[in-house]
Amino acid sequence: MSHFERTERTRLRRMPERASYDTAVVEAILAEGLYCHVGFSVDGQPYVIPTIYAHIEDRLYIHGSAASRMLRTIGGSLPVCVTVTLLDGLVLARSAFHHSMNYRSVVILGQATEVTDPDEKLTALKAIVDHVMTERWADVREPSAQELKATSVIRVPLEEVSAKIRTGPPVDAEEDYQLNCWAGELPLHLVPQQPVADPQLRAGIALPEYAKDYQRSGEK
Amino acid sequence: MSHFERTERTRLRRMPERASYDTAVVEAILAEGLYCHVGFSVDGQPYVIPTIYAHIEDRLYIHGSAASRMLRTIGGSLPVCVTVTLLDGLVLARSAFHHSMNYRSVVILGQATEVTDPDEKLTALKAIVDHVMTERWADVREPSAQELKATSVIRVPLEEVSAKIRTGPPVDAEEDYQLNCWAGELPLHLVPQQPVADPQLRAGIALPEYAKDYQRSGEK
Repeated sequence: MSHFERTERTRLRRMPERASYDTAVVEAILAEGLYCHVGFSVDGQPYVIPTIYAHIEDRLYIHGSAASRMLRTIGGSLPVCVTVTLLDGLVLARSAFHHSMNYRSVVILGQATEVTDPDEKLTALKAIVDHVMTERWADVREPSAQELKATSVIRVPLEEVSAKIRTGPPVDAEEDYQLNCWAGELPLHLVPQQPVADPQLRAGIALPEYAKDYQRSGEK
Repeated sequence: MSHFERTERTRLRRMPERASYDTAVVEAILAEGLYCHVGFSVDGQPYVIPTIYAHIEDRLYIHGSAASRMLRTIGGSLPVCVTVTLLDGLVLARSAFHHSMNYRSVVILGQATEVTDPDEKLTALKAIVDHVMTERWADVREPSAQELKATSVIRVPLEEVSAKIRTGPPVDAEEDYQLNCWAGELPLHLVPQQPVADPQLRAGIALPEYAKDYQRSGEK
């Protein structure tokens, strides 16, 4: 079982029992997540932007965002935080104080650098498309040289990483268990609905299997 | 129709046609979202943490997080970014380049301050609990003075705010519409599952209506 090293910056101070540095736990959350929130600072003002990503070995690749513009402006590398959050449900306790949510999240701290090598960029984009929908890349037109140039991809090393997980029923104060109040969990799932064909879709093109049976899960 | 002022920091440079500064649009996204990602910097390192929130008039209240610890350390106020993202679906184009997601997001830039007044804190906590589940507060034991003290709440003014929205089918390059490739949207919804009673729930306590018919939507 491999672990990420716990650093002063990734040590959980609040609810440390919810922390995990286990590589497999982190990777399962990254595999199930669809998008991340990337945080970076400009002139002392933090920005948090949602974007898609993929994980390849010890690197996280993030699809072009405002952070890329920053990287180009300052050159070199930029400290970022990438957070992936999976909401699993609401936790309804008998007291306001003990209300909570069940969730799994990963926080990655590191230096972002722009990917400039076209091969690495193409590999990252393929991973990003297939991360969102397995097997999709094989069906679509690949990026032209011009499109590749117009797309920005940033890389963050998977080094300083922590996961945080809450599961299970509410934990109430001992004296509250007698209260006349319903308590429990309301699980929430991200559920695919009926696919909607592009109004301009040519006749006779069937919905692919991967879109028919789409689901997110930790396995990869 | 009221608007947030567009500032140099909230002006969308990429895909400006997706931007909105309309107060009603922003408020509908804040009402539907369940949690936010709050970003702040410590010694030049950004952190992005998921947490719950509520919106009251021109203020956003955020439930205690690492940011509160920061606020106590530095005192005064702390520049933050609060982002709420609703994922609505995957957009499958005929080219890798034009793949996208349908989403609605709000980005709030501002100075966070800690709420110290007990009345304001209690009002904010009630709003946070009822934001997650309408009518819940009335059923639960309210925070004791000690619990109130142990909970941190931070306030961010709703002043520098923008929304970003993508809806609809993929937009492909003209020459790609003839490709033999399925294209369209796969809508995704956050769907409540069967509620799970706390194993320690006393007998004879019925599931409340608000947990039975739970759903998120923009109206409030």
